[in-house]
Amino acid sequence: MIVSIAIALPRSPLRVAPVRAAVAPLVVNIGVVGPGKVGSAFLTQLRLAAPRLLRECNLQLSLRAVSDSRHMWLDCDDDALNGRLHGAQIWRPAELDEFAAYVAGREGEVAVLADCTASDIVANHYAGWLAAGIHVVTPNKRAASGPLDRWHKIARASDASGARLHYEGTVGAGLPVVQTLRDLIDTGDELLAVEGMLSGTLAWLFNRFDGSVPFSALVREAHAMGYTEPDPRDDLSGMDVARKLVILAREAGVALSLDDVNVRSLIPAELAEGSRDDFMANLGAMDAPMAALLADARAAGGVLRHVARLDGRHASVGVQVMGTDHAFAHSRLTDNVVRFATRRYCDNALVVQGPGAGPEVTAAAVFTDLLRVAGAMGVKRCAC
Amino acid sequence: MIVSIAIALPRSPLRVAPVRAAVAPLVVNIGVVGPGKVGSAFLTQLRLAAPRLLRECNLQLSLRAVSDSRHMWLDCDDDALNGRLHGAQIWRPAELDEFAAYVAGREGEVAVLADCTASDIVANHYAGWLAAGIHVVTPNKRAASGPLDRWHKIARASDASGARLHYEGTVGAGLPVVQTLRDLIDTGDELLAVEGMLSGTLAWLFNRFDGSVPFSALVREAHAMGYTEPDPRDDLSGMDVARKLVILAREAGVALSLDDVNVRSLIPAELAEGSRDDFMANLGAMDAPMAALLADARAAGGVLRHVARLDGRHASVGVQVMGTDHAFAHSRLTDNVVRFATRRYCDNALVVQGPGAGPEVTAAAVFTDLLRVAGAMGVKRCAC
Repeated sequence: MIVSIAIALPRSPLRVAPVRAAVAPLVVNIGVVGPGKVGSAFLTQLRLAAPRLLRECNLQLSLRAVSDSRHMWLDCDDDALNGRLHGAQIWRPAELDEFAAYVAGREGEVAVLADCTASDIVANHYAGWLAAGIHVVTPNKRAASGPLDRWHKIARASDASGARLHYEGTVGAGLPVVQTLRDLIDTGDELLAVEGMLSGTLAWLFNRFDGSVPFSALVREAHAMGYTEPDPRDDLSGMDVARKLVILAREAGVALSLDDVNVRSLIPAELAEGSRDDFMANLGAMDAPMAALLADARAAGGVLRHVARLDGRHASVGVQVMGTDHAFAHSRLTDNVVRFATRRYCDNALVVQGPGAGPEVTAAAVFTDLLRVAGAMGVKRCAC
Repeated sequence: MIVSIAIALPRSPLRVAPVRAAVAPLVVNIGVVGPGKVGSAFLTQLRLAAPRLLRECNLQLSLRAVSDSRHMWLDCDDDALNGRLHGAQIWRPAELDEFAAYVAGREGEVAVLADCTASDIVANHYAGWLAAGIHVVTPNKRAASGPLDRWHKIARASDASGARLHYEGTVGAGLPVVQTLRDLIDTGDELLAVEGMLSGTLAWLFNRFDGSVPFSALVREAHAMGYTEPDPRDDLSGMDVARKLVILAREAGVALSLDDVNVRSLIPAELAEGSRDDFMANLGAMDAPMAALLADARAAGGVLRHVARLDGRHASVGVQVMGTDHAFAHSRLTDNVVRFATRRYCDNALVVQGPGAGPEVTAAAVFTDLLRVAGAMGVKRCAC
C-alpha cells in the first residue's frame, strides 16, 4: 500500500551509521507532532545536522514518528520518509499518548517530543508525557501562557521525573530570548522591565504606516503576502503578543495570566465578531482611527509602534507613540525587538533583535531546545 | 593569626544548609582564580544566588578556594570569608595545579575553576585541568584567541574527559553572544558574516567624538573615568577586539589566529612604543588624523564607528564610516553590538546589543557558564 502525504518530510533517513567512537553515542528518539510549516522545517534541519552532531558531539538523533491531528507515521527513519510512506509503515488515527509511548519505548535512550502545533489539546498532554520521563520542546505558546493550574501541574511533573520542557521558540522564534532571561534570573539578576516588539506582522505594518496609503491597504498587502494569520484579526487583536508577554513574565517569576494583561486591540468593536470575509470586506473601518493615531504621533514628534511592556506585575500590549531616538523607532522589516531592563542592565538595556517569525527560525528554536535536552544528558556542546 | 586581605570576599559562607529534597543536591565545588573586580563580583553573585539555586534547582554551590597570583585561600566556605582569613585557614604561595587538585578532591562531586584573570599563564593550565575532569569557566580571552596548538590541545583534553570549557564572558561580557552563535551552528545554520562593535571603550569614544573637543581630550576623559585600560593603548590598538573576533571565528569553525586579523590600530606609530606616561603626554598626536577621519565621514554623510568584521575567513578591525541608517550609528554609551548574518538570518541580521563590559555583567557570564556545567550534569534549569 502506498499512501501519499502532502507534507515535506526528509528525503533520506535521519539516522546515520554511527562512527567508531570510544563511547556509545547518546541516542535521542524524536517524535514530531504537527508536520506543518514549522514541523517540516524542523525535520529538514534534523536531517541536515544529524551527521555533524553524531561526528562532533557523539549525539545520535533518531526520528521515530510523526503525527498530525488525524494520522501518525511510525518508524519514519527506517528506510522511508521519501515523501511517501511505504506499505511496511503503520498509519492509523492519531492517539497522542500511544504515539508518545512509541517514541519513548527504547530502554536507555532519551525521548523528546517536538510539539510543532499551536494546539491546546496537545498542550494538555505535556504533564503526562513529562511524568513519564519524555522531554517536550515546543514553540506552542498554549502551555506556557495558558491556565496557571495546568502550568503548575506541568512544572510538578517535570520536577518529579527530571524530564524537561523547553519553549525558546514561543517568543521571538529563533532569537535568544527565553534562555537569556532564564540566565539573568538564575545568576541573581532582577528584572525591572521588559519592553518588546513581539509581533513581526505588527512591526511590519507600523514600520510601513506613514500615511501615504490607508492602514487597511497595508493589512491587505500583508495578508496577501502571507505575513498575517489567515484571519488578520489573530494578529491585530494583540492576543498573540499578550501570550508572549505572559511567558516572559512567568520566566521572571511573575505568575501572570492572560487576563492580567491590558490588551488594547486594533480591531474596531463592530468588526470583532463575524466572519473573516466580512472583516476583510470592512477593513476600511480601521482607517480613520489609525490615521488619527498617526496624526497624534506626528504632532508629538514620534512614530507609532506596537509594544508589549511588563513593569513589575503591570503588563500591557498596544500601539504607542515612540520618540525617534528610541531603539524601536529604528526597527526594520518584520524585526522583533526585546529589551530587558534589569538591575545589572539598568543604564542601557540588554537588547535582542532580529526576525522573530518564520518556519526556519522557529524550527531552529525547537532544535536548540532539543540540543539543550541532549546537553543536560551530558552531550558536549562547546567549540573547544 | 589574622591576615588582612584587600579583596571583596562574600560576607557569609556560600554553603547553605540543604533543604529536604527527595534527591541529594548536585554539589559543585568552585575555585576562583583571580579575585579582582570580576572575581569579587562573581563571589558576591554566588553567595546571593546560592540559596535560591539550592531551593529551586537542587544545586549546591560550594566555594572551596580562591587564588591570586601569590596566595591561595582554602576552605573559604567553612566559617570564614568575612573579608579576613582566620588562623584556621591556610595560605601559601599559589601553586595552581595544587589549588585545582584541592578544589577537585571530593569524590562524586563536580569541580569548576573560574579563571577571572586575563593571564596567559593560567590559560596554560586549562588542558591539564580539563584532562583531570575539572571544568573551566572564564572570561579570559587568552586560551580561545591564543595559539591554535594550545587551543586544540585544550579541545582534546575536554573531549577525552568530558569536562567543559565555557567562555561566554570573552565577547560582550554578559550578553548572549558565544552561546547564540553555538546554537546557530549546532542547529545547522551557516555564518555568512559577523559585524560587531566589540569594545565598550571605543564605542564610547566614537559615540562622543563629534569634533567639538579633540579626540585626545575624550581619551583623557575616558581614562580618568576608568573606561579605558590603565594604558589606553591596550584599547586603542584594537588587539582586544581582534581577540574577540578570533573567538567568534573559531566558534563558527573558522580556525583563525590573531595574526590573521587585519587590525588597523588607532595609535600613531611614533607613540606605539615608550612608557604610558609618555603616551599620555603626547596624546595630542592623535588629534589631526582623527579629525581628518571625522571630516571624511561627514563628507560621506556618515559617522565613525570602531567595527570588527568577519566575512568568510577575512577578519578586520578598525574605524569605519557607517551610514546614519546603519544600526551601529544608533548605539549609545558603552554598548556593544553584535550582528550575525547567517543563511537563516540573511535579510535582517540577528542582533545582540547592550553593555559589554563591567565587573558585574562579566561575572554574570562566568556564572552562566557555571550553570551550563551544572545543567550538563543534570541540574534542571527551566521555569516550568
